[in-house]
Amino acid sequence: MLRLGPFAAAAARCLPAGPRLGPLCLAGSRGSFARSWPPAGDRGPLSRQVRAAAGGERLPVLKTPKGTRDHPPAQAALRDRLLSAVVSCFKRHGAAAIDTPVLELRETLVGKYGEEAKLIYELQDQGGELLALRYDLTVPFARYLAMNKITKMKRYHVAKVYRRDNPATTRGRYREFYQCDFDIAGQFDPMIPDAECLKIVHEILSDLQLGDFVIKVNDRRILNGVFAVCGVPESKFIPACTTVDKLDKLPWEEVRSEMVGEKGLSPEAADHIGEYVQLHGGLDLIEQLLQDPKLSQNKVAKEGLGDMKLLFEYLTLFGITGKISFDLSLARGLDYYTGVIFEAVLLQQENEHGEEPVSVGSVAGGGRYDGLVGMFDPKGRKVPCVGVSIGIERIFSILEQRLEASGEKLRTTETQVLVATPQKHLLAARMKLISELWDAGIKAEMLYKKDPKLLKQLQYCEDTGIPLAAIVGEQELADGVVKLRDVATRKEVDIPREKLIDEIRRRLEP
Amino acid sequence: MLRLGPFAAAAARCLPAGPRLGPLCLAGSRGSFARSWPPAGDRGPLSRQVRAAAGGERLPVLKTPKGTRDHPPAQAALRDRLLSAVVSCFKRHGAAAIDTPVLELRETLVGKYGEEAKLIYELQDQGGELLALRYDLTVPFARYLAMNKITKMKRYHVAKVYRRDNPATTRGRYREFYQCDFDIAGQFDPMIPDAECLKIVHEILSDLQLGDFVIKVNDRRILNGVFAVCGVPESKFIPACTTVDKLDKLPWEEVRSEMVGEKGLSPEAADHIGEYVQLHGGLDLIEQLLQDPKLSQNKVAKEGLGDMKLLFEYLTLFGITGKISFDLSLARGLDYYTGVIFEAVLLQQENEHGEEPVSVGSVAGGGRYDGLVGMFDPKGRKVPCVGVSIGIERIFSILEQRLEASGEKLRTTETQVLVATPQKHLLAARMKLISELWDAGIKAEMLYKKDPKLLKQLQYCEDTGIPLAAIVGEQELADGVVKLRDVATRKEVDIPREKLIDEIRRRLEP
Repeated sequence: MLRLGPFAAAAARCLPAGPRLGPLCLAGSRGSFARSWPPAGDRGPLSRQVRAAAGGERLPVLKTPKGTRDHPPAQAALRDRLLSAVVSCFKRHGAAAIDTPVLELRETLVGKYGEEAKLIYELQDQGGELLALRYDLTVPFARYLAMNKITKMKRYHVAKVYRRDNPATTRGRYREFYQCDFDIAGQFDPMIPDAECLKIVHEILSDLQLGDFVIKVNDRRILNGVFAVCGVPESKFIPACTTVDKLDKLPWEEVRSEMVGEKGLSPEAADHIGEYVQLHGGLDLIEQLLQDPKLSQNKVAKEGLGDMKLLFEYLTLFGITGKISFDLSLARGLDYYTGVIFEAVLLQQENEHGEEPVSVGSVAGGGRYDGLVGMFDPKGRKVPCVGVSIGIERIFSILEQRLEASGEKLRTTETQVLVATPQKHLLAARMKLISELWDAGIKAEMLYKKDPKLLKQLQYCEDTGIPLAAIVGEQELADGVVKLRDVATRKEVDIPREKLIDEIRRRLEP
Repeated sequence: MLRLGPFAAAAARCLPAGPRLGPLCLAGSRGSFARSWPPAGDRGPLSRQVRAAAGGERLPVLKTPKGTRDHPPAQAALRDRLLSAVVSCFKRHGAAAIDTPVLELRETLVGKYGEEAKLIYELQDQGGELLALRYDLTVPFARYLAMNKITKMKRYHVAKVYRRDNPATTRGRYREFYQCDFDIAGQFDPMIPDAECLKIVHEILSDLQLGDFVIKVNDRRILNGVFAVCGVPESKFIPACTTVDKLDKLPWEEVRSEMVGEKGLSPEAADHIGEYVQLHGGLDLIEQLLQDPKLSQNKVAKEGLGDMKLLFEYLTLFGITGKISFDLSLARGLDYYTGVIFEAVLLQQENEHGEEPVSVGSVAGGGRYDGLVGMFDPKGRKVPCVGVSIGIERIFSILEQRLEASGEKLRTTETQVLVATPQKHLLAARMKLISELWDAGIKAEMLYKKDPKLLKQLQYCEDTGIPLAAIVGEQELADGVVKLRDVATRKEVDIPREKLIDEIRRRLEP
C-alpha cells in the first residue's frame, strides 16, 4: 500500500518536546556511507593491470545514487531482525508471501498515484516496453490479482520500492526503501478484515517495544459525508481531503486558509469542516456523530459511522481500543482509499537509558481500497481490499539509534567455533577439522593464513563474538583430542576428537 | 559475481540423453503468469468510482515486463526454502550480510562487463544523476569495498539483478533474477579462501540433493600461459578466452574455426591451443603440465599450475576432490577474473519417481578477481577477492519441476490453528479466542464471515493444510472449554479454556 514514505514529513511531524528537551528531529541524522572522492586528478601508481582494465578512463565517482545507501553488516543484521519480526507477525495471521518484479510497465502505474506520479522512476526507452520502477507494493498487488483473476487472498510482501523524491525537500527521506505490506483481498463481512489489520499494527508495535503509540482511525466515507454536509461540491472532495491531511503538521488556521485560498472553498464551508475535523475520541464520538442532525442525514457518512461503530466493537473484542483514536482529521493522501483509513504514530518516549527521546512521525498506515483492482480488470470487476504497511525505515532508524545509545554491539555473523592452531605447519590439521565441523552443520571459521599466531586467532574470536575455539596443536594431534576453549571464560578442556561435535552442540544449546 | 545468467545457454548445454529418452531442454517450460488482456474494447459495467479513478483512460495491459515474472505463493514458499538453505551455508562459513542499492551510478558499471554492458538497464535522465540497474552483485561489492576503504571482508549478498537480454535469443532466461553471492576479500595465503569457495559449492549442491555434479576448475593464468606458448599475442588473450569458453557448447572443430576465422589466430596456434584445452583430469594432469617443456617455461602458467596443485591439496583435506575436475577448457566469459575460475555443472540424473531426467547447465560459478576493487580506488589499491555465485534460478526450476512431478503440495502459509464456530451468532467468541491465540504467538486464522458453516471452516483447514481447529460452540462456551480437533484424524477433545494454549503448543511440538 502506498501509505508511508520512509520519512515523509518527519521534520514537520516532530512531536512537542518534553520538559527537559528541545524539539528533536533525528530523521536526517543517520550516517551516510556515501563519500564522494575528488575527481581523480592524481591517479597514483595504478598497476598495469588496473590501468588496462579501466580502459584508461577516469575513475568513477565513489558513491551510491542520491537518496540510496548501502547497508553494511551491522545495519543488515539489525534490519534482518526487524524484518523477521514483522514477517513473523504477518505469518501468524495466515498470510502467504508473493513477489512481483521491481519493474512494472509504465502504464500499470499511470493514473494510480495522483500528483505523486511525478516521483516515479522511469527507465530509458532502450527498445521494447516502456518500464518504470514500482512506487509501492499495492498497485502491483492489484495488478497481480486482476491478471490472475484472484478474488480472495491474504498476502504479505516485503520488498524495496522507489520514489524520486525532490532532493531539495528531503530530510532523511530515501529514494529506495523497504515496504512491509499485509493485505486482505476479498468480499467478506464488513470490518472483520479491517479489524485484523489494526490488530496487526498493534501486535507489531507492541512486540518491537517502540514505546507508546496511538492508532488513528477514520473513514473516507465519513470525510466525504462531512464535506457534503458542509456544502463542498463533490469535485472538491479530493482537494479538500488533501488539505485536511495536513492537520497533523499545520494548525487549523493555516489549513483553513489553504481551503479557502488555494482550494476555493467558501469560508463558511471551511469553518463548518473545521468543527468536524478537529474532533477525536472513541465510541462516544461515533454515537454523537450518529446523532448529528446533518451528518445522520448523509447516506455515506451514516454507512461510514455504522461501520466505524462495528469496527470499535471488534477492536474491543481484540482488546486494543486503548490505543485507538477515532480522529476526523486523519485523511491520508492517496486517492484510492474508499473506506476505513488508519495511521499509527509513536508518542514521545523516554527510554531506560535516560537519553534523549526519539521523535518520529507515522510508523504504520493503511486502509481500504475497494476500487483499485477493478481499474485493472477488463470488466471492471471489483475485488475489495484492505491492507496495512509497516513503516520499516522509521522503525529501523529508532532501533538503530537505540542500539547505538546502548553501546551494545550486534554480531554480524553467527560463527560458533573458530578452528585454531597454536604452532606452525598445522594448516592441514585446521582444514581437516573445520571440514568435519562444516559437514556436521556447525558454523565455523578459521583464519586464512598458513601460520597465524594463536593470540591473533583468539583476538578474532573476541572481536567478532565467536563463543568457542577448537584448538589443535601437536600435542592434541598426538593425543587424539581437541582443546575446546570457552572464549568468554578462557576455560580450556581436552575433548576426545570423536566426541567433539557432540560437545560443541551441547555447549551451544540455548 | 557475474558468473551465471539464470538460464545462460541452457538449451545449448543440454546433456546427452539417457538410453530411454530424447534430449530434454526444460529451461523454457516454466509457466508464465503473464497473460495479456485484449485492449479494453468492451469496458463492461464500470462503476462510477472505478471510471473516475481510472480517469477515463484505457485499461492497462495486464502483464509483467518481458523477461520478468510474479512469484505466486507456492513459488515464493519454495524460493524461500531454497534461499534459506543457501544462506545458511554462507552463514556456516562465517559470512556477514550486506545490502547495496538496486540502482547504481551508470559510471560505476561502465567498463566492467566488456561486451555484456549493452545488457545493462539504464534509467531515464529525469534530472540529476545518470543511473542504471545493477547487473550483478560483484561490481557493487567492489564499489562498496573501495568506497569504505575495506581491505578484508567475508560477505554474502542475496538479491535481484537485471539484464536486458536480447528477447530473441532468450530461452527461459529472465531479465530479473536472484543472485546468491559469497565473496572473500583480503590479502591472504594462496588458495585458502579459494578452496573454501569450492567447499561451499560442494556443500550446497550436496545439501540440496540435486543429483550428481562436477565442479570444473581452471586458472586464468594457466590459460594465458597456454595462449602465450602457443604464440598468441597478448592483445588476443581475451578474445581467445571468449572462444575457448564455448567449448562446453560447441565441438572443438567449430571453436577452432572461430579462432582462426573471427579472432584471427594462426591455424598452428589454434591447433596448439586445441591440444591443451581438451585436457582435463586431476592432480596427475597438473603434474604432467608442470613437466610440460613449454608450459613449465612460462612464468604465469607455472604460477597458476603451482597454485592449482596447492588447491588440490586443500580440496583433498576438505574431502571433495571426487567432484572436482581440472578442466583446461573452462574459461568463463568475464574480463575481470585474474586467477582460479570454476563452474559447477549438474550431471544427468534419474530421480526416484522414474520420470524424465532434468538437464540443466551450470548451477554455480565463480573465481578470483584481484583487480576489480583497484579499478574503483583513487590510488588503485588492490583488494584481492575470490567469490562464488549460486545459480539459484536454475536450481529453483529443477526443484519446482521435481515438486510438480511428486504431486506434493507445498504449504504456502504456516497457520497452526483455525478458530471455528459450529453455530451462528458466535463471531464475538471466535474473535476473543483468536486474539488470545495471536497474543500467545500461535499462528491462527478464522474465516472473515459472521456466520460461516462449520463444514466450510473444516474444508478450509484441509485445503490449506492447517493441522488443528479450535471450535467454540454454545455448549463449549457454557462448559468453559474449547473443542480441539485434529484435522487429519478428525479426533476431537474438549480442552479447558485455560489449558488450551499449552495443549496447542504440546500438539505442535515437532
